[in-house]
Order: sequence, then structure tokens, then C-alpha cells
Amino acid sequence: MGENELVERLLSGNRRALARIISKIEGEDPEVRDIISELYPHTGEAITVGFTGPPGVGKSSIIAKLIELYREEDKKVGVVSVDPSSPFTKGAILGDRIRLSDHFLDRNVFIRSMGTRGHLGGLAGASQLAGLAMEAYGMDVVLYETVGVGQGEVEVASAADTVILALQPGAGDSVQALKAGVMEIADIICINKADHPQAKGAASEVRSILEIGHELDPDAPIPPIVMTRGDNGEGVEELKEKIGEHREFLQESGRMKERHQASIREFILSWATNKMEKEMQERLSREDTELVEKVRKRELDPISAAETLYREV
Amino acid sequence: MGENELVERLLSGNRRALARIISKIEGEDPEVRDIISELYPHTGEAITVGFTGPPGVGKSSIIAKLIELYREEDKKVGVVSVDPSSPFTKGAILGDRIRLSDHFLDRNVFIRSMGTRGHLGGLAGASQLAGLAMEAYGMDVVLYETVGVGQGEVEVASAADTVILALQPGAGDSVQALKAGVMEIADIICINKADHPQAKGAASEVRSILEIGHELDPDAPIPPIVMTRGDNGEGVEELKEKIGEHREFLQESGRMKERHQASIREFILSWATNKMEKEMQERLSREDTELVEKVRKRELDPISAAETLYREV
Repeated sequence: MGENELVERLLSGNRRALARIISKIEGEDPEVRDIISELYPHTGEAITVGFTGPPGVGKSSIIAKLIELYREEDKKVGVVSVDPSSPFTKGAILGDRIRLSDHFLDRNVFIRSMGTRGHLGGLAGASQLAGLAMEAYGMDVVLYETVGVGQGEVEVASAADTVILALQPGAGDSVQALKAGVMEIADIICINKADHPQAKGAASEVRSILEIGHELDPDAPIPPIVMTRGDNGEGVEELKEKIGEHREFLQESGRMKERHQASIREFILSWATNKMEKEMQERLSREDTELVEKVRKRELDPISAAETLYREV
Repeated sequence: MGENELVERLLSGNRRALARIISKIEGEDPEVRDIISELYPHTGEAITVGFTGPPGVGKSSIIAKLIELYREEDKKVGVVSVDPSSPFTKGAILGDRIRLSDHFLDRNVFIRSMGTRGHLGGLAGASQLAGLAMEAYGMDVVLYETVGVGQGEVEVASAADTVILALQPGAGDSVQALKAGVMEIADIICINKADHPQAKGAASEVRSILEIGHELDPDAPIPPIVMTRGDNGEGVEELKEKIGEHREFLQESGRMKERHQASIREFILSWATNKMEKEMQERLSREDTELVEKVRKRELDPISAAETLYREV
């Protein structure tokens, strides 16, 4: 089947076509280039939200509730999950605590997990392309779920218009998030397990960290902190409102444009870099066994060897 | 001060020089190139061990005990830690449970944590260079501590001759480790908290996963599983023996050479790629605002834009 037909089917709302296109993105199919070039003009209108935080915080329960709230407004919702610990990724549904089963049957919800390795353009690139496919399919909201640990995961989330960082009380999460560079990209902080005895303490800890960060960019609003409970959905309504307010702020302040520019720049760079890396990899395995051997025998140091390869390409 | 003098001081066992050189590596100082080229011939003899696993497993307590055991043999030990949740990284010492205070005062032990972002050559590259500096300083053993989540962290550990994956019972860790691609690089599995009621269950779960993995490379030995207790050091002696046995296996089977080649190849590639990425980044911010704008306005798709940048460089 030609890619045209697949994209046409996607644009007409065919769920299977969406699934197949995302599989092609995951599989680094050469067709992806044409597919993206055709569907790209049909994107750019969705609400995009990056959802990140350490494993075990309860991101998936909050997302499940968020989907529910968006569905009540008749919005179509796509989820791209790159958190290997997520129940979305595991394909498992944790009882009714996370009522995803409903969403799986809802044709206006599409949840897709992405493998965490070996994508052209990196993990962030592949996730963004999957999100674009969802937008072209007609999703009004696209959520990116990631686990906020590595740099790659931070990139996935930061490509979205609004980034939510989920933390839980009493785990020292906020300090770790700060160190991992996640805190600085968060537009909204969500403290889950609000019924935890240390929830308020966690909120004030986060607030003081945020105030320090605020000094770096005084024009940016201090991210609001929302207390949620994934188990009963408390606070998720407020979280949704904050997403809306953040979007308004971005649009009115002109920051939306900057944000899109930055995210496009990031995509272009990592795509081109990955391509370059593959080329160097091929060259190195084809020709330069001698170079590697010299380094192994301590006749040449590894940095000089790298510079040699760099000059050659 | 010239770099010559700094390297000379390092080679004569000056601790300050070691600290300064690692700081230069962290700070991407242009001197690093010359420093590495001078110290590199003095490396290659140390026992290198990568120590990885999810946060909270108790890696640091095991490492503390391992250091003790190597010190009893009068071996000098260096630790490069890139686990942001590690007490080494936090600079904190968790009471006497981890008796690191002794090691901090011991001049034959050097523990250094590395920031997890923005290194030329990537996190793995910078850690390896820090490890090389430790080898040149005279360390007989260099341990790399990482948290086995992202790809970068896996790379740090996999550059070592022997990779230990630490897991704990009852956390579903083994499944996550498998998904993150850590399991396949482990030479030894360490199940910590051996007194946990589910410890034996965890061991047999891991064993069955390993047996499946073994089918992929029947010549490789199935990684041994060692049960340890970080709190009282039980089992760490056995872990040390397994490290020794693994080294012997590598040397006798000729796999040590292959392993070094692979790790050198990886270093060269990521260094050259990072350099290339910087060049593209500069070009993109200098000239190609127009390219980004076209993508933002949906006149051009992001993959085509990336290909354009790629062709230009």
C-alpha cells in the first residue's frame, strides 16, 4: 500500500491507519519521511501536554482521570507513553484504581507506548512524530507520558506546550527532579497522594525551590502547584484548569511561538545528529578497525582518535 | 600552570591534581585533550567495574563494603558516581550504615560524583575520562556507579570490564531492568536485601530471565547471581570473588580484547557525534532561523528540515 493511501485513511479518522503509521515510526520505516511530510500540514492545533515524574508517583492514574475530563468535553485524546514502568506501557491495567479499560474501548482515545531505544531522531523524535500522527488523526489533546529521569525523557516531555511534573510527598523527589533538570522545564507541579501526611511539607519544599528558579527568569510565572489524588481523582479538575491557563499565558505573551521554535530546533538537531552518528558508525565499522586497535594498544588516545574520525566525515 | 605539570603531579600520586583534572573534564576544559593524551599511556591495568541498578537498591552500601575488601588487599580504589540518588553524589553519608566516612579519609580511596548533563562526549564519555584519570593516578580498581534507567547510564556502566546489576526483591525490578536493556549487559547479578522474604523468589525470577537471554549468546556464561546484604556486608566477599572470576574468564577467552574494542569504538563515536552536534547547533542558531520558521508555519515538515541541515554540514 502506498503511503498516500495510509495518510489519507489516517486523515479520515481510521484508527488502524494511525496504529500502522506509529508502528512505522517505531520501526524506522523509510516511508516515514513521506508520511510525515504529508500529514504535517494537518497538525499544530492540539493541546499538547508532557507529563513526567519519577516512577511510582501515580502519573497513569492522573492521566486516566484527565482523559475522562477531556472526554466529558467531547475532546479526542491521544497518549504517547515512554515510561517503561507505566501500566500503559506494560499493557496491564491495575484494577479499577486506573480505569483505563473504559478508555481502551473508547474510540476517541488512543493510547500508545513507545519502546525506549534505538529510534532515528532519538526517543524524543520518535515520540513527537507519533504525537503528530495523533494530531493529524484528529486528536484535540495529546499527552506525552515519560519517567523524568534521563535526558531523553526530559526531551520528550519538554517538546509539549505544557509540561507537568508529578511528584509525591516524602520521597525526596523534588531534590532529585531539580538535579535531573526536570524542575526547570515544569510549567505545573502536581503533588500526588495529597492525602499523605507529608503532602503539605512537600508542597512548601517545592515552592521554595521554584522561587529560587524564578529568579533566573523573572518574566516567567512561578509554576502553580496542584495537589491531586490519583485514587479518587481529587484535584485533577484543577490540574486541567491550570493547563488551560498556561496555554492562555503562552498565547497571550507570545511565548507559544518561542516554545514551538525551540522544540522544532531541538527536533531538527537531534534528527540530523542521529543521521550523522549512523554515518560515522558505518564508517568506523567499515574502515577504522585500525584506529580502534591503536587506541586499545595505547598508541593513540581516544580523544585524538575521535577527532580523526570527525575530520574524516 | 601548564597541563604537563598537572599530569606529572597526577602521575606522582598527587590527590589535588587528580581532583583538578576531573574538574577540567567536567568543565569541558580545552586542556582535557592534551591531558588525556598524556595520561592515557599510563592506563589500562585497573580492574574496572560498572555498578548499576534502580535507585534505592542499596548500591552504595555494597560499594562501601567492596572498597573495604579491596583496601584489605591494599588495592587503591576510585569511584566515579553518576547516580544522582547516590549518597556519594549527594555528598551525604547515611549514618554508619554506609561507613563511607572512613573511605573519605583514606588517601587510597577517591570518590567522585559527576554531574549528569552537558558533557562533551556525553555522560559516558566524561565518566570514562574521569576513570582514566583515576587509573593514571594509580587506582587498582575503578568502580562506576550509575542508576540503571536511561540509555546514558547503561553506557557508563557498560564501558567497564565487569558490569554488576543490583536488584532488590519484590520491586519488579528485574522486569524493568530487562526492558531498559540493562539485564543484557550484566555480567553479575547482585540481589541485595537478601534477608527480604521475597529474596529467593526474586533470584529464581532473575535466573529464568537470564536463561532466556543466554540462548542469544550460548558462548557467554550465564551471569552468576549473588545474594548480598548491604547492611552487614554479607555476600559482598562472594561478589568480589565473582568479579575476579569474570575477569579471568574475559582474559582467558579473549573476550577482554573484544570488550575493550567495543568500548573504545563507543567512546570515539559518541565523542565525534557530540562534536558534530555542537557544530550543527551553532550553524542552526546562526543561520537557519528561516528553516525553523518554515517548519513552525507548516510550510516544511521537520524531517525535511533536518535533512536540509544535514546536507549543509
